[in-house]
Amino acid sequence: MAFAPAGLITLTTDFGTSEPFVGIMRGRIFTRFPAAQVIDLTHGIPAGRADLAGFWLARAWHEFPPGTVHLAVVDPGVGTARGVLLAAVAGRRLLAPDNGLLPEALRGTGSVRWHRMAEDLPARLGLGPLSRTFHGRDLFAPLAAELATGALALVDFGPTVDPLDPAPLPLPSRDEQGILGQVLLTDSFGNLFTNIGAAEVAACRQPFAEIAGRRLEVLPTYGAAEAGDLLALVNAFGLLEVALNGGSAAGALGVAEGTQVRLRDGMLT
Amino acid sequence: MAFAPAGLITLTTDFGTSEPFVGIMRGRIFTRFPAAQVIDLTHGIPAGRADLAGFWLARAWHEFPPGTVHLAVVDPGVGTARGVLLAAVAGRRLLAPDNGLLPEALRGTGSVRWHRMAEDLPARLGLGPLSRTFHGRDLFAPLAAELATGALALVDFGPTVDPLDPAPLPLPSRDEQGILGQVLLTDSFGNLFTNIGAAEVAACRQPFAEIAGRRLEVLPTYGAAEAGDLLALVNAFGLLEVALNGGSAAGALGVAEGTQVRLRDGMLT
Amino acid sequence: MAFAPAGLITLTTDFGTSEPFVGIMRGRIFTRFPAAQVIDLTHGIPAGRADLAGFWLARAWHEFPPGTVHLAVVDPGVGTARGVLLAAVAGRRLLAPDNGLLPEALRGTGSVRWHRMAEDLPARLGLGPLSRTFHGRDLFAPLAAELATGALALVDFGPTVDPLDPAPLPLPSRDEQGILGQVLLTDSFGNLFTNIGAAEVAACRQPFAEIAGRRLEVLPTYGAAEAGDLLALVNAFGLLEVALNGGSAAGALGVAEGTQVRLRDGMLT
Repeated sequence: MAFAPAGLITLTTDFGTSEPFVGIMRGRIFTRFPAAQVIDLTHGIPAGRADLAGFWLARAWHEFPPGTVHLAVVDPGVGTARGVLLAAVAGRRLLAPDNGLLPEALRGTGSVRWHRMAEDLPARLGLGPLSRTFHGRDLFAPLAAELATGALALVDFGPTVDPLDPAPLPLPSRDEQGILGQVLLTDSFGNLFTNIGAAEVAACRQPFAEIAGRRLEVLPTYGAAEAGDLLALVNAFGLLEVALNGGSAAGALGVAEGTQVRLRDGMLT
Repeated sequence: MAFAPAGLITLTTDFGTSEPFVGIMRGRIFTRFPAAQVIDLTHGIPAGRADLAGFWLARAWHEFPPGTVHLAVVDPGVGTARGVLLAAVAGRRLLAPDNGLLPEALRGTGSVRWHRMAEDLPARLGLGPLSRTFHGRDLFAPLAAELATGALALVDFGPTVDPLDPAPLPLPSRDEQGILGQVLLTDSFGNLFTNIGAAEVAACRQPFAEIAGRRLEVLPTYGAAEAGDLLALVNAFGLLEVALNGGSAAGALGVAEGTQVRLRDGMLT
Repeated sequence: MAFAPAGLITLTTDFGTSEPFVGIMRGRIFTRFPAAQVIDLTHGIPAGRADLAGFWLARAWHEFPPGTVHLAVVDPGVGTARGVLLAAVAGRRLLAPDNGLLPEALRGTGSVRWHRMAEDLPARLGLGPLSRTFHGRDLFAPLAAELATGALALVDFGPTVDPLDPAPLPLPSRDEQGILGQVLLTDSFGNLFTNIGAAEVAACRQPFAEIAGRRLEVLPTYGAAEAGDLLALVNAFGLLEVALNGGSAAGALGVAEGTQVRLRDGMLT
């Protein structure tokens, strides 16, 4: 699928919003592409967590029309010799440091073309000397602008490369007692996203989730539980989620990322 | 007043910004309405507080030009049979779950036409099956886009309904000692917004606010108090506010939402 | 350099994002200038810290093209007789309360023309009575819109004034042991920005930073330290920064704004 510029650039970073880091990136983008429409996905990725940036980008990139450039900067290796990766997929472009973020974002996605930035590209684009701590400003913002206008073609970006390994987000395993997964993240509501998928839940006739010594029925909605009660459900991202109707499951259970979650079929136990 | 699309959509949610929930909503909006201008009012409404979302939307909707669509998603009943409400007022459209949010936002506003979403509208708009946890993405974002383009007329949205009850934000009462109100919310500066209005303050010759055992003069500005001193004033939203010049009244008083505030006239006591 | 409107307005405030204060400012801007592109630099300036707003604006204003209007509202004197200041520099306009913010933002910048708002300007622009607590909405947003369209000329804004003193951000000093500076701020990553500049570091043959009893080598990148180790480097804003590879230096050292930092040359000691 060819890239027909939509003028859209999305941003995903761990920069937070307390400093103008993201605003400064927008300045660099507008300087090269005044008509760009720049959209924040989130700047609240936990610091350095390329895996979680990939997780969220996986759930967002296809929500934007073809012709969109998705830029993700979670870059603990900023200033070192780490590369820059570009993925071309379904008429979009995804751009990020070469640290597993994009392979995580496109885990299981077919027909991806991968490119690694040529070392001389910054010079060819007239970028000045890069700082050692803020490539979001000095490198990634102008690259995204040049890609979004359509001026920078894949062939000029750099050579194709083989798919890399995704960031090491844990995957669930199966044993004789069912599916054993874990909490991937806690969202702003205190809901616990697990790494157990909808298909595994659907395969159970009476699905239950076990976490922190609690056994929770898998219900259709938050509101199907009594107010203040814990429950499990399949959330809008196709994952088993542990929640509390009207409150924070993370707070009530005192658990966080990494806590073990087991999916059981009540018909089998 | 007819609706002449301005291309503007505002968003008010309790989604926070740590995850890309709002960004994903923008993706769905742009997919249907590429020229939309989408503006964040706030995503920091406390979780599930439709009443506070209504409070803030009341203070913001009229600040945008006619032709704006205001979408508010605070939706603890997501996935259940709760309805979707649309208000047409002064050339704007306000859209939200049917949970008291919009009646609170339009409390005291005249000439509002209310519509409830027809059950078959999602199917007519070609929306796929809705998730059980994220109608902001699956339902409200596309609805807002269709309203903002002007393509979706009120008559097609659904039948008119009678005004509902506002969300239950507390109202002040009057007794022989004056006006008895309470703290509605604490803002980012630690200022305490009360539910006592400017008119009640103006009716006092020597207005004082009493809170947490303190008696505070009603001054014209923050700077009219000594640095570090507590004061009361009528704020930019027409409400009696308790503040501290150069700091946080909430912190200094150790109070929060729900704390009782009394307005007294010093000429009468 | 003449002002050729770019349609861009940036916003820097201490308003936070938990309430729709900034969204309401956008409403006022769009009402006067529907085609404006409004960009957030940050709304996370610590409350009342005009000096830090100036610090960040200094690092951002030139990143946007000529024709941009930069509006900064950190305004503890809101509602009092404090003035409104406008700086014209390099084809941009910077607008803020007259409290040292803009002189800090333009510290060391040449060819700045300064104007102070004429007292009758709000009336000339048809602004209603101003509230006592929210001039961001009532005054600054419409002013920025009128400046950004090019409709409001400098000569109509108000008389020229002499440069004022910058906000009192501390400057480093020199003694016989080297450069003595301090921590200016902690960023979202827990990195400590000092007030010691790159030139002072470059003047050392073996630069070391001393802070909280630790002696830290000045390295080229975060990744040049072992994971979990403290380091110092010259950051992307030309300042000596104390950091921790893969974590928070502020947390590890238990220090914050104001902590003393010394730069030493290891060849001299």
